[in-house]
Amino acid sequence: MEQNLVIGVDIGGQTAKCGVVDARGTVICQTVIRSDQHEAAEPFIAELAVALKRIVKEAGVEGRIRGIGVGAPNANYYTGDIENAVNLSWGRSGTIHFASLLKDAMDGIPVTLTNDANAAAMGEMTYGAARGMKNFIMITLGTGVGSGIVINGEVVYGHDGFAGELGHTTIVRHNGRLCNCGKTGCLETYCSAIGVARTAREWLDMSDTPSVLRSLENITSKDVYEAAKEGDELARKVFDFTGTLLGEAFADFIQFSAPEAIVLFGGLARSKEFLTEPIERAMNANVLPLWRGKVKLVYSSLKESDAAILGASALAW
Amino acid sequence: MEQNLVIGVDIGGQTAKCGVVDARGTVICQTVIRSDQHEAAEPFIAELAVALKRIVKEAGVEGRIRGIGVGAPNANYYTGDIENAVNLSWGRSGTIHFASLLKDAMDGIPVTLTNDANAAAMGEMTYGAARGMKNFIMITLGTGVGSGIVINGEVVYGHDGFAGELGHTTIVRHNGRLCNCGKTGCLETYCSAIGVARTAREWLDMSDTPSVLRSLENITSKDVYEAAKEGDELARKVFDFTGTLLGEAFADFIQFSAPEAIVLFGGLARSKEFLTEPIERAMNANVLPLWRGKVKLVYSSLKESDAAILGASALAW
Repeated sequence: MEQNLVIGVDIGGQTAKCGVVDARGTVICQTVIRSDQHEAAEPFIAELAVALKRIVKEAGVEGRIRGIGVGAPNANYYTGDIENAVNLSWGRSGTIHFASLLKDAMDGIPVTLTNDANAAAMGEMTYGAARGMKNFIMITLGTGVGSGIVINGEVVYGHDGFAGELGHTTIVRHNGRLCNCGKTGCLETYCSAIGVARTAREWLDMSDTPSVLRSLENITSKDVYEAAKEGDELARKVFDFTGTLLGEAFADFIQFSAPEAIVLFGGLARSKEFLTEPIERAMNANVLPLWRGKVKLVYSSLKESDAAILGASALAW
Repeated sequence: MEQNLVIGVDIGGQTAKCGVVDARGTVICQTVIRSDQHEAAEPFIAELAVALKRIVKEAGVEGRIRGIGVGAPNANYYTGDIENAVNLSWGRSGTIHFASLLKDAMDGIPVTLTNDANAAAMGEMTYGAARGMKNFIMITLGTGVGSGIVINGEVVYGHDGFAGELGHTTIVRHNGRLCNCGKTGCLETYCSAIGVARTAREWLDMSDTPSVLRSLENITSKDVYEAAKEGDELARKVFDFTGTLLGEAFADFIQFSAPEAIVLFGGLARSKEFLTEPIERAMNANVLPLWRGKVKLVYSSLKESDAAILGASALAW
C-alpha cells in the first residue's frame, strides 16, 4: 500500500514555504511563494492552492495527501481563522476563514491551522528533539519570542485558541522596554534577536567599554554573536544578560506546567554556546528545589531549512 | 438502584477533615480527626481508616463507597505518594506510599491523591463556580498561595506530578521577600494572608500614616480586612497593593494557558470587596489586548466549611 503524506505550509510576512512530507519527516518536494503581493486573502489562497497542486504533481503523489497543516501568525486552531494579522498584507483587518477557504481550493483536503510556535512544537514532538515527550515548552527565539506549550502530549490552545503567548510575559516589571503589543517589559523586547541587538546598542551608548561592535553601523544579533565568538567582552555580557532573563522566565514557566524540557528553536538559539550557561544558572536559581537541575534545556534537532514546513505538516497527521 | 458515593479527606498540618459525599456535592456525614499526633504515617493511616469506616457506618452507606479522594500537602497524583511534607508530623522525611497504604486499610477501595489546591480546582469544577468550564486557574489565598490549573477539563500535573506551583512564581524580581521555599520575591510572600499582614506591619513601621492597626499587638490579615471595612486608609492601600501584585501575576498566567476564568478561594478571598478592583485593573493592564476585559475573575461558590472535603471527594469520581 502506498504511504500517506501530508502538506506543511508556513506563512510568514514575505513568503509562504510549502512542502510535501512523509511520516518519517522527510520533505519530499517543496516550494516557496510570495505572501506579500495581495491585499485580499482570496487571490493569495488561490495562488497557494495552485502551488500546492503543482508540487503534489511534481512529486507524483496525487491522491495520497491526507491533510494540510498551516502555521501562520494570529491563527486560531479552534476556528481555522486568521484574525487581525498585522504582519500579513492580506490579513490586517478582520477575520479570514483561512482553513475553510484553502480546503475548498484544495478540493476538500482537510486543513488545520495554528500559529508558527505551536506548529514548531508539533514539529519537534513529531520528528525532532521532543520525540517521545508528553510535557515540554517550545520557545522560538526569532525576531520575536514565540511559544508552544505541550501538556499530556497535546498543544495547549486554551479557552479561545490563543494560549501560549509567553513572549509577552512581563520580565522587567518597572521601566521595561515598550513592546509592539503596547505593553512594557515583555520577554520578547529583551530576548528576541531584535532585543539582543537593542541591548548591545544601549550598552554601547551608555558606556565606553571597548567593543568590536562600535565600528558597525547597524548592529544585528548576528553581529553580537560573531563578536562574542571573537571574545568581545561586551558582546558576551549581552548574551549573559539575555540568557539570565530567559532563565528567570523559564523558571516561572516550569512552576506552571512542570515540563520535562524547555526546547529552544530559532535564529537566536544558534548562539547556544553563549546562552546555555546563563539560562541554566538563572533557571535553577529561580525554581523550587524539587525541579532544580531536573528540567532539561534542549535545542531543536530539525534541519533549519525544513523546520517550518515540518512543524506545519505535523498538524496534519 | 442505590446512588454511588465517595469519600473526601483533606489533610492539613493539624487536622484531617473527612466526609461522605454524594454526586450532587452534599456532604452527608463528616468528621474531623487530629493529624499531628503521630511521628510515623502507618498509625495515622490506621486511625484515619477507623474514622472513615465509622462515618460510613453512621450514614448507613456501607458498600456504596466508590472511591476515596485525598487532598494533602506534597502529594503526587501519579504515584499516590506524599513526599517530604515538612508540615506533616509524620511526613517530614522521605516518601510515604499514602494511597496504597490507605487503600489496604480500607479493604481495597481505590484512593486518589493530589495537593490541596488541585483538589480545590476539582471541587470547583465538579460542584462549584467552575462547573462547565474546561479551562480555568484556581488560586487559593490562604496562609500560602496555592494553585490548580485546569486545561481541557483536566488538572495539569506535568511531567512529574507537581505542576501548578504558581504561589512560587517571582512577582518581585529584585530585593523581594524571602520565602519559606528558599527563593525570594515569590507571589505567596506578598499575596497570602501572612503576606498581607507583613505588608501592613512593614508599612506601619516605615511611615507615620495614622491607622487603627497601630493599636494592635499582632496584626493578622483579618485585622487588615476589618480596618479596611472601617475605612482605614493604610489598610485599604495594603489591599490595593496586594490586588495589584495578584493581577500582574494573573496576567502572565493568562498568557500561558488562556483560561476562561481565574477562580479565587481561601481566607483572603473573603476580602473580595477590596481585592477585585485592583486585581482586574492590573490584570487587564498586563495582558495582551486580545484578552483585555475577557477573562473572568470569579470567587468560589462552595460553602467554606465543606469546600476542602468536596474538593478532595471530587478526585474520587
